[in-house]
Formats: sequence, structure tokens, C-alpha cells
Amino acid sequence: MHPLIKNVEYAVRGALPIRAEALSAELKAGKKLNFDKVVFCNIGNPQQLNQKPITFFRQVSSLCENPELLAPENRELLSKLYPADAIARAEVLLKNIGSIGAYSHSKGIPFIRENVAKFIESRDGYSANPEHIFLTQGASSGVQTMIQILTQNTSVGIMIPIPQYPLYSATISLVDAAPIPYYLNEEENWGLSTEDLKKSIEEGRKAGKDVRALVIINPGNPTGQCLSEQNIREIIDFCHKERLLLLADEVYQTNIYMPKERPFHSFKKVLLSMGEKYKDQELVSFHSTSKGMIGECGRRGGYFECVNIDEGVLEQLYKISSISLCPNVSGQIMVDLMTNPPVEGDASYAKYKSEIDGIFQSLQRRAIKLASCFNSLEGITCNAAEGAMYLFPRITIPQKAVEAAKEAKMAPDAFYSMAMLDATGVCVVPGSGFGQEAGTWHFRSTFLPEENLFDGFCSKIEDFHKDFLNKYRD
Amino acid sequence: MHPLIKNVEYAVRGALPIRAEALSAELKAGKKLNFDKVVFCNIGNPQQLNQKPITFFRQVSSLCENPELLAPENRELLSKLYPADAIARAEVLLKNIGSIGAYSHSKGIPFIRENVAKFIESRDGYSANPEHIFLTQGASSGVQTMIQILTQNTSVGIMIPIPQYPLYSATISLVDAAPIPYYLNEEENWGLSTEDLKKSIEEGRKAGKDVRALVIINPGNPTGQCLSEQNIREIIDFCHKERLLLLADEVYQTNIYMPKERPFHSFKKVLLSMGEKYKDQELVSFHSTSKGMIGECGRRGGYFECVNIDEGVLEQLYKISSISLCPNVSGQIMVDLMTNPPVEGDASYAKYKSEIDGIFQSLQRRAIKLASCFNSLEGITCNAAEGAMYLFPRITIPQKAVEAAKEAKMAPDAFYSMAMLDATGVCVVPGSGFGQEAGTWHFRSTFLPEENLFDGFCSKIEDFHKDFLNKYRD
Repeated sequence: MHPLIKNVEYAVRGALPIRAEALSAELKAGKKLNFDKVVFCNIGNPQQLNQKPITFFRQVSSLCENPELLAPENRELLSKLYPADAIARAEVLLKNIGSIGAYSHSKGIPFIRENVAKFIESRDGYSANPEHIFLTQGASSGVQTMIQILTQNTSVGIMIPIPQYPLYSATISLVDAAPIPYYLNEEENWGLSTEDLKKSIEEGRKAGKDVRALVIINPGNPTGQCLSEQNIREIIDFCHKERLLLLADEVYQTNIYMPKERPFHSFKKVLLSMGEKYKDQELVSFHSTSKGMIGECGRRGGYFECVNIDEGVLEQLYKISSISLCPNVSGQIMVDLMTNPPVEGDASYAKYKSEIDGIFQSLQRRAIKLASCFNSLEGITCNAAEGAMYLFPRITIPQKAVEAAKEAKMAPDAFYSMAMLDATGVCVVPGSGFGQEAGTWHFRSTFLPEENLFDGFCSKIEDFHKDFLNKYRD
Repeated sequence: MHPLIKNVEYAVRGALPIRAEALSAELKAGKKLNFDKVVFCNIGNPQQLNQKPITFFRQVSSLCENPELLAPENRELLSKLYPADAIARAEVLLKNIGSIGAYSHSKGIPFIRENVAKFIESRDGYSANPEHIFLTQGASSGVQTMIQILTQNTSVGIMIPIPQYPLYSATISLVDAAPIPYYLNEEENWGLSTEDLKKSIEEGRKAGKDVRALVIINPGNPTGQCLSEQNIREIIDFCHKERLLLLADEVYQTNIYMPKERPFHSFKKVLLSMGEKYKDQELVSFHSTSKGMIGECGRRGGYFECVNIDEGVLEQLYKISSISLCPNVSGQIMVDLMTNPPVEGDASYAKYKSEIDGIFQSLQRRAIKLASCFNSLEGITCNAAEGAMYLFPRITIPQKAVEAAKEAKMAPDAFYSMAMLDATGVCVVPGSGFGQEAGTWHFRSTFLPEENLFDGFCSKIEDFHKDFLNKYRD
């Protein structure tokens, strides 16, 4: 077996979730545990925790699945089950797709790429070229392709934030490139400074690495910060000076919980606003149907847009995409719906808006509630979530627990998280899975449990934390 | 950019199809060409050529997309649009899946893996373990993962048939392993002998390659042969002696056009029938929802089953699958439907059976018709398709055309295929994209054009071929 395969670590689905699955199976088999349900907070998977899908989106996709419903003889019945705009949208999609059971263009259905381009144009105020947009199976597969293409040999370095989403470290490890870490500053709500970036790239180059790209996750995962426009400009300027390709993971672009103080700025918009000097700055931006208020994770829909990328590279990207034939067509349809939702005047607009707003406001409330729960606990501090779906609290772990962890051959934060799982059924991911400053300990938890269960969820964590401290108090 | 990326070749979506797309766009824009439609015979994509999807499958998947239809208040209307067994199946699936918008288990939904295991058991008469089954995004992604895992360094060799499906050569090239070709014998209807395998592995080893696996495609692509049970035994014995992992691409297992003379035997069934001596022979078998009579290519559904694979390797496969989170859930649902279709007594059985039989018989007729069209042409010989969706005729190209090809900087078979595309709108793939014995020329064409247009399709090819020969006759 390839040694790189063994080296790869992927904590979001690592030891903790595997144990959580096993516990879940034990409960199903009737075993009595300290809890009656495992709560999977290890992964941003809203519909697993009963978030309702957007009605209009599912209506359209179900009609695309079964075009026979659109036959004239079914129309009368159909109109009792489906709003007119869902029917009309399905017809437009099917006309442009043909059958959803056929392989599509390897870059994705041209009509949908055109809609994505319009969405980007209206978001940013700058034109977008459908030929520079690639539909993908979730954002992950696009990230994997880009990192693979960038890695010419083992001396290639790719800058990643610490803490980071382990897709990046895992993929970099898989292709045998070198991660060049730069640290987010917890004291400044996980902000980053260009001094830190400079220090990081210098260290990478001193170590003989050919640093080629910088990964930025905005809003942050696992950290939840939203970058200011000024900060984004500085990052772009840094990449431009250092000739780095910018890989902007912007999958949480609508999970923005302080829209006045911390609105979302796309890297593309900021880059294009910076004028002529930056016109050769390369940027790839990733988006997904899995996050936002949509949460259609199982769909595996997404896209990336290439900005200022050489035509020769685009051709190679097309060729590599072709080997996997095409992204799944229902995921592509969901990308169309995400970027082209009902608008004012459409029959489904009011319902769509109330569903989106309802999910958004609830996420906002839960983010605040969970942060305040964590901050009320002895030895825990937690930054507010400006965006995304996670909190990344810092925990002070008593020396006795550190020793117990050592005996159990676990990192202290993994030990703490495992104890939480066993006591409460709540599955979080230890900070060591994302990277953290040496000597600090964290865990990542989503704030996705259902709102009507949220107080119970918080108090279970509180009780566990108190018991844990009492057990291991120095 | 990684140099391996540039080296990769993928002809099924190469220069010919790119030109075919361009011609198709010109036609749409109103340009007059020698034909009024491009016919994509370069890829096994039945629904692109208007093959109808299986009604029951689409009914179930549309209900899974829109579970609101299943609410009590909709039941009466629903029963007028959907048969009872489709409704019942959707309910069972949703109960076991939860929301199709959630990430599933990274190996695929356990309930569906159990159904796949039952399907394999009833096909082969030997038990199958759901834990050894991985659902994938089409067969391709499974193949890519297995080849990646096998390749420890650049000295690793993987045996592949020539001609082969270019997924194999492209993936091997991408991970920098070495393809070790073994030749199929055109004179014996693309059969293979263990002598040829022995010769091939010896040559690979002489060249310093650590040969680790053998890829077999049965029924063959692009060649369409079905292996006899005796031949499969010999191949297994060869792999056992040489300690090779067997990668069996069995995606065409139901595209069997001479079921009496050449039935399908799965490698697993034959392996397990060979007894104790072979109990450590490693085998991975791939299947897909894209082929057969289903043709749900855009769905990206598939699975692979691991037989006699070490637990440690299975764990690594699970970890690597986790990085991409999960295969898309609608693809997984299609795998469930493929392996667990309506049975006698179900409301939808009669319709299901008549659809499957209709597609099958039509494919059988078209395979015969196209082969006889090719064989009637001067300088063309073509083996019958025992299976799969393709013919791979051999063409004698006149010296004058070979010279013209040289001037155009094309391989002679690519030159011929390009001329066919320009004259008729029919897009095939030159044999050079699959590999062929030196000095021979071929092309691959699907026999998927609609049956009511098939005579016209054949006569267009006939006319073109005559004109081509007249133009370049030596």
C-alpha cells in the first residue's frame, strides 16, 4: 500500500466519530448507555440533525427525476401538488439538460454554468465567464483536483491556516506536498496578519520548499471568523508579491451572523476592485450546496471559479475532470437552484424566503447560545462565530487529565472529547485534528442540534464538563 | 503544474469529442453542415441518445427527493400518480437513509450495502459481507482509489489489457505507476491466453517493475468479449501464482448478448468455486448504475466489493473515502434500485420487466446490425459484441490516407475518425485511444443510436467509408 495513504489523517471522520457510530449501533440494538441518542456535532451535516430542506429546491429536483409527471395527462393532478414556478423551473432545466440520467459535459451542464456566472456577477458586480467555472461533487473534489494539479514534486509547499479544515492537510499529505502552516490569532478572534504570513512563507522557503499557493477559508472553519475587506486586500497583496495562487474556500459565504459588522466579501470582488496592478493575480474560489441555509450535503454539489488562470491550465483541468466523466447531475441541479433561487414575484418566493430566514435566524441564536454556554464554564473560553457552523472553544485541561490521556495514549483534547462522548453522546472533534498552537487544547462543535433540544444539549455539556473537572482537578 | 497531469491522455473525451461539441454548438447557432445532428458514439451514454430511464427507478427516486408528497394529506392524489410499490419502496429507503440531503456513512448507507450484499449472494450463490462493500460515485472513482492505494512508488506495475478503457491508463499515468500491457487476441474474438499474461508479466519484471495487480474488463471495453468460466479460472490461477491483486471491472455484467454461448460469470463466483487453495486470492470487483439496461450515467452511482482483502487495507480505504465525505446519495439510491428491483408479484414488475427486456433486445439487435454494417465494408473486419455497448472494428487505411494523416499530425485512425465526424456528424473514438497492436488501426463506436434511426446511421457510415476509400485509394 502507498505509504502516503497510511500517513493521511482525517479527524472529522476519525476515532471519535467511529466510536460514536459504534455507540449509536449499540443504542439501536437496545443497549443502555448514559444517553439515549448520539448527537453528531463532529461534522456540518444539518439535515442529519433534522434541518428541513428548502421546499422549492426539492420540488424542482423531484420533477427532474420523474419527467413523466410533466406529461399533459398528469398536469391537473400535478398542479395540486406543485406550485407553478417549480413546474416551470423543472421544464427549463430538463430542456437544457436533456435526461438527468446522461453524463453531462465534464465541466458541468453549460446552462447551469451560465446561471452560476450570473449569480457571481450579481454578487460581486464584476463579470464572470461560464467557461472558467467547473461544477464539482461538493467543494472537496475541486479542492483535491487543484492541490493535485499544483503539486509538481515533494518540494512544493502550500500555505494553510492553523487551525484548518483537515481536507487540506489530508489532500496535501496524499499528494506528498508540504503544508506550510500560518497561525490564526485566537486573541484577535482568529484574525490573521500579513506579518504572520510573511514569517510563515520565509520559514517554508528556508526549509527548501517551493511555496506555490495559499489556502484561505473565509468564513473560517473551524474558527468561524469573517475577514474584513481590508484584511482581504492585504492577503491578496501578499499573494501578489509572493506570486502565490490563492485558493479561497468560500463555502460558508451565506453563513454570516454579524452581517453589519462582519459582512462577507468575496475574494474575487476585492481582487477585481484593486485594479490593473493585480490583473494577473490567480485565484480559485470554491462554493458548495452543502452549507449555507441549504445544507444539501448528501447531494455532493459544488463549483469552483477560476480567475486569471492560464488557458493551458484550464484545458488540463478540463481533461482531468473528464477522467471522472462528470459531476453527478442532481448535484448540478442543486447548484443551479442555490445560485438561482425564487425571486420576488415568484409563486414560491414567500415560502422560500421564510424558510431561509427561519434557518438563518435559528443558526444565529444557536451560535450565540452555545458560545455563551462554553464561556460560562470553568477553564473554557470561546470566540463568537462571525460565520460558518462551528465553535472552536479553548479548554484548559487539568494536569491529572493530561496524565490520564497520556496513559490512554491520546492527545489531551481527544481524551476530553472521548470522555464527553461517553458521558453525553455528544460527538465533537478534538482540536488536534485541525491543528492548534502548541500547548493549547480545543475542540470543534457544530451548533446544529435542533433548537427545541438546544437547552438540553447545552446542559448535558455543562454537567459533563463539571464532572470532568471534579474528577481530574489538580 | 504537475508534469504527470500533462502526460495523461483520455481519448473518450479527447480531441474528437471536443470537435464534436464544437460542431454541435455550430449547428445550434444555425450553421449549415453536412449533417443536421451530431451523434455521440464516443461514450456509452444511453440516455443522451434518448434511451428511456426505468420508470420504477425514477418514481422511487423522485419520491425520495420530495418526501412531502408522502404526507397523509397528499396520499390520495399521490396514489393516482404513483404505483403502491414505488411509494412503499421510497418509504423504506427514507426510513433507512434519513434525509437524502445529509452526508451518509462514507462507505455508503449501511442499509443499501446490505441490499447489495444480498444481490451478490443471489447472483453468485456465495455470501457477501456488507462491510466489504463500498458505494462509490460511478465505478470510476472506486478504480481511481484502488489504483492510488496500490501505487507505493514509480516502480509499481499494473497489468492492463490492450485494447483497454482509458480510465486505467489515465489513472495509472496520474499516480506515476507503470502500465504492464497484455494483448487481447483479435483473431480469437478478443480472448486472452495465460501464455500472453505470462509473457507480459515477465517483460514487466525484466524492466524492473514490481507488478502488483491485474485489471480485467469483463465483458470487455472496447472489445465486447465475455470470458468463459474456464478462461476466468486460468486468470485467477495466474494471479494466485504471481501474487497479483485482481481488479475486475464488471460494469457490463448484464449487457450479455449471447447468454447461452457466453453467459456472464463473476470473478467472485468462480474464485470461490475454486476452493481452499485460492482462499487468500485478493479480488476487487466494480459495478455501476451507468451501464446495463439502466444507463443512469449522470447519477454517478456504483460500488466495489472487496474479497479476501486485509482488514488493515479496508480501514485505509474507509479513511480515504472519508476525505470526500460520501458518495452522492441519489447515486446510492440508484444502486439500491439496480440491485433490488421489482420482483414477480410487485405492482411494477410487469412494466419493469417489459422495459428491461425491450432495451436488452433492442441493444442485441443493434449490436448485430452495426457489426454486419461494418463487416460489409471494404477493408473493415469486426468481431461480434458478446457483451458491453461497443464494437471495435479494424480498418485497413490506404497508404495515401496514412500520409495525409501524417501531414495533419494525426494518427491514421484519428484521421479517419475525424473525417467521419466531419462528413456524417458521427463521433467515434480512434483505436489509438485504447491501445492496439502496432500496425493495426481501429475505432470504437457504441451501438446506442436509437433503433428507429439506426438504418440511417448505418448508411451514413457506409457512404462516408466508400467516399473515404475513393478519395485515398492507393
